[in-house]
Amino acid sequence: MKAAVWHGREDIRIEDRELKSLKDNEVTIRVAWAGICGSDLHEFEEGPVFIPTKANDLLTGGIAPLTMGHEFSGIVEAIGKDVTKYKVGDRVSVNPTITHGKRSEYDDIYDGFSFIGLHCDGGFADFVNVPESAVYHLPDNLSLETAALIEPTAVAVQAVKEGGLRFGDTVAVFGAGPIGLVTIAAAKAGGATKIIALDLSDSRLAMAKEIGATHIINSGKEDAVEAIRKIVPRGVDVSFEVAGVQKTVEQSIYATKPRGTMVIISIFANPISWHPMQLINTGVKVTSSIAYSPSSFQETIDLMASGQLDVTSIITKKIEFKDIVEEGFKTLVSDKTQSKILVTLSGEK
Amino acid sequence: MKAAVWHGREDIRIEDRELKSLKDNEVTIRVAWAGICGSDLHEFEEGPVFIPTKANDLLTGGIAPLTMGHEFSGIVEAIGKDVTKYKVGDRVSVNPTITHGKRSEYDDIYDGFSFIGLHCDGGFADFVNVPESAVYHLPDNLSLETAALIEPTAVAVQAVKEGGLRFGDTVAVFGAGPIGLVTIAAAKAGGATKIIALDLSDSRLAMAKEIGATHIINSGKEDAVEAIRKIVPRGVDVSFEVAGVQKTVEQSIYATKPRGTMVIISIFANPISWHPMQLINTGVKVTSSIAYSPSSFQETIDLMASGQLDVTSIITKKIEFKDIVEEGFKTLVSDKTQSKILVTLSGEK
Repeated sequence: MKAAVWHGREDIRIEDRELKSLKDNEVTIRVAWAGICGSDLHEFEEGPVFIPTKANDLLTGGIAPLTMGHEFSGIVEAIGKDVTKYKVGDRVSVNPTITHGKRSEYDDIYDGFSFIGLHCDGGFADFVNVPESAVYHLPDNLSLETAALIEPTAVAVQAVKEGGLRFGDTVAVFGAGPIGLVTIAAAKAGGATKIIALDLSDSRLAMAKEIGATHIINSGKEDAVEAIRKIVPRGVDVSFEVAGVQKTVEQSIYATKPRGTMVIISIFANPISWHPMQLINTGVKVTSSIAYSPSSFQETIDLMASGQLDVTSIITKKIEFKDIVEEGFKTLVSDKTQSKILVTLSGEK
Repeated sequence: MKAAVWHGREDIRIEDRELKSLKDNEVTIRVAWAGICGSDLHEFEEGPVFIPTKANDLLTGGIAPLTMGHEFSGIVEAIGKDVTKYKVGDRVSVNPTITHGKRSEYDDIYDGFSFIGLHCDGGFADFVNVPESAVYHLPDNLSLETAALIEPTAVAVQAVKEGGLRFGDTVAVFGAGPIGLVTIAAAKAGGATKIIALDLSDSRLAMAKEIGATHIINSGKEDAVEAIRKIVPRGVDVSFEVAGVQKTVEQSIYATKPRGTMVIISIFANPISWHPMQLINTGVKVTSSIAYSPSSFQETIDLMASGQLDVTSIITKKIEFKDIVEEGFKTLVSDKTQSKILVTLSGEK
């Protein structure tokens, strides 16, 4: 089969690979659609970040070179002999997060976790074997194409839950990249009223408006906190930091009301200079969110199937698998008007 | 009457002052006991920090030179004509926090607040006039001396509430100065089980043990986080940062369990270098606490009167009012074995 294999920084190759032998608890999925994630880009541009290169990953046994891809949908092609919940032909999505499983589902990841498609072979391939426990049934009314968006959307659903968002709350989202955009949609589905999106790019802000932001602010052109306080004078109930820089950390604190919550979703490359009096003077609480629990993943599927959570507008391009490097990775690096690029694979649609 | 008046940095003078005329909504209190607070010390060593010197304080109208002292007890000497809840001879404590009063009591302070004894005349004097709304009755079994400790203890009661401490939880307190010590006592009164105190000073740690810490760690002699994780392998439920430096911010995050809470109580003079991945990797939530709501102040009185919250061991010295500068302020600056110094004033005990 064909697979997009990470060999090193700026070295992703489409090559022929043999599918590993199926374990008893595994399901073989013929991949239909797969999305390229920001963390895939990091591995391409600056990696290895997560990809194990020196020792086999403790949870999955994976090591580079490995097949990337952790946002994908497909159809069950074969099942291991212990698999009971899936049969050949089932339409499925995969939760790529592999945890130790010793804790409750909301803090399990803090024992450490691995990702199918980053720590072991993933979905940028015709076929992939994954544990039955990672597989989720797709409702009939959720297309395989849309199902490739479940994984990033689950990040947002979990973040909105971690922010303690309540029906009617006001929200600010700092950063309108793919995760910022699905966070806007998740906040709306969660009952937020005013949803203020901030970014430096007008094209991203236009996408923010399309997916559900009620207000957009170009924080390169006006003072972000002042502009938010014109809309919500005392500050928003919940803010989401999805840009990953010092300035947006400060802005998202100052944009939030006393005893409101700021949720960090970004991955930061470096420490920032930060004054703890920002919290003491404002009364804002800071939390973070990473990945999602199995429940949040299922809820995301349910919300997307019901139509409450429609994130399809983040798809800016659909490409053939053979073009994944040139028209996928390289386009995302160079063209900042791109948001989510989906790759079509051999699975029946 | 005699009053200890702040004129400028390192310039606190005991002088004769006339008591201001009593307003209709005010109560004159003959002060019995008053404590010297860390923020009083800051005004002495590095002030003005909070004391208004250029314009009258917006909430209280006060301006330097003004009488300090915001931790005090006494007996009602006179009442204004609109005062209904107090009569001459009542034993009372004073909540020195003056707010705008437009919000719920737990976020009122974030509109800004002033302090009797920092923004207007306070309790380092024979008499002080305060609004009736700032006055609290003392139960018969709470001595006037102990009542001088209500104010700093209320800071700790509020902080423990803000930390979401639950019955049976484990706690770490970083810094065993006066507020750290009363936080230990408040956590114990709130039902904490393991209470781990950390400081660089063995004498402070001995006081921490006396007031209720179950474990003490000298973080200058051993690795704080490692030592805590020997006691509570996954981290404590709630940590309190009462030292105000970068290292204790980091330590208190790493000492806390996933989805546990770190509460900043310190006032920070400067920004710190901070890596947001500390939150993302640990799942720890950060909040802060400053001052206290009226309910927390009353609860503190009730807990101290019932004996559930005994903080009298923090008193390291009792001095005469005439000695407040030499034996009070200057001793606290030079002698780090001191914790709380109480000043006796003219009020009947």
